[in-house]
Amino acid sequence: MKKKVAVLLSGCGVYDGAEIYETVLTLLRLDEKNVEYQCIAPDLPQRHVIDHCKGEEVSESKAGGAHARNVLQEAARLARGEILPLDQAQPDDYDAVILPGGFGVAKNFSSFAEEGAECSVEPSIRQFVQAFYQARKPIGLMCIAPAIAARLIAPGILCTVGKDAGVEGAMISMGSLHKTCDVDDIVVDNTHKVVSTPAYMLATRITEARDGIFKLVDKVLELA
Amino acid sequence: MKKKVAVLLSGCGVYDGAEIYETVLTLLRLDEKNVEYQCIAPDLPQRHVIDHCKGEEVSESKAGGAHARNVLQEAARLARGEILPLDQAQPDDYDAVILPGGFGVAKNFSSFAEEGAECSVEPSIRQFVQAFYQARKPIGLMCIAPAIAARLIAPGILCTVGKDAGVEGAMISMGSLHKTCDVDDIVVDNTHKVVSTPAYMLATRITEARDGIFKLVDKVLELA
Repeated sequence: MKKKVAVLLSGCGVYDGAEIYETVLTLLRLDEKNVEYQCIAPDLPQRHVIDHCKGEEVSESKAGGAHARNVLQEAARLARGEILPLDQAQPDDYDAVILPGGFGVAKNFSSFAEEGAECSVEPSIRQFVQAFYQARKPIGLMCIAPAIAARLIAPGILCTVGKDAGVEGAMISMGSLHKTCDVDDIVVDNTHKVVSTPAYMLATRITEARDGIFKLVDKVLELA
Repeated sequence: MKKKVAVLLSGCGVYDGAEIYETVLTLLRLDEKNVEYQCIAPDLPQRHVIDHCKGEEVSESKAGGAHARNVLQEAARLARGEILPLDQAQPDDYDAVILPGGFGVAKNFSSFAEEGAECSVEPSIRQFVQAFYQARKPIGLMCIAPAIAARLIAPGILCTVGKDAGVEGAMISMGSLHKTCDVDDIVVDNTHKVVSTPAYMLATRITEARDGIFKLVDKVLELA
């Protein structure tokens, strides 16, 4: 039977959602490996909307006064509409889960962007990822996502955010182990079946991100 | 000297902007070929915003009452902020121009989605692309973008939208020549230096889109 991987998305856009290139490169590699995937996102309001030209917050409202954008609706852009709301997703249906990075992980999936080492993780995200961890299925984390590994999964996991001393410090104080890593490489915690790569924590061009992300996907599939 | 390619974006998301996978695959291939690129978008309001879960229009407003989203700001998501407003872009700086598809081409760059063969093309887009055509520089069009080739560039250009009889009919009545084409292939008009591929007019998976888009990028670079 074909393997199937859950890809957990936190919006659409590096500054307030899921990093677009990381997501597309993940899906590309899964499809190259002839593995099925399902994009999944929580039906939650985005913390805010960032104008990606200026890097500044934009004030937006929807009819009815709803605030900002919705993580599920924006993530659906990255899935060409083929997205599953997190509350309808069953971890049992998947052999592995991968989280691309982007500030959405630190803003919508957790409060890491605001609170650093004091952050909390959105309970529905934690519950979903925990099911994979408990079932000994592999978990792939890229870019900023490994920063919250201790709270998302468990303390004591070895992973990487590349070479960012500030983020590394916050990770370690939450209970993760950190290993520096080049952009085109991965860090593998075989005990906990967690694979991480720096991606756009370090990448300066898309082919650099590709190399690490393809390795991450391949390793996750090998462990699945 | 390194070649440099302009990539013209119409937003971010298949139903109201630039198709995300087509854009990222284009940038990936350009970078793989060690070619510089610049994402460019017009500073215009999007025609509307589509909820990519439901495919329905969403009513949104910004502070100050501005309507819908802005093409440049949304396209900036696809460029990780590294985007140039169209009115600051000089065609002389580039060796070729590529337009990914997505409904943004038929809604923000032209009125094709509403008016079909009676459509008009946004003047700033036409002016920019015309400069490449007049200078005999290659133009790459993917997905729905070839539909407006006669109005965007000139009548008499041979291109493809895959196998969509309705769109093909509208194209031909505007003065284009059409050739059916498989998803993993391209149509080349050597006389006018226009290369097209069906991409998500036909693709059912991302690797199919990749094959045609990589061929398009390679051919555009060969002609540049």
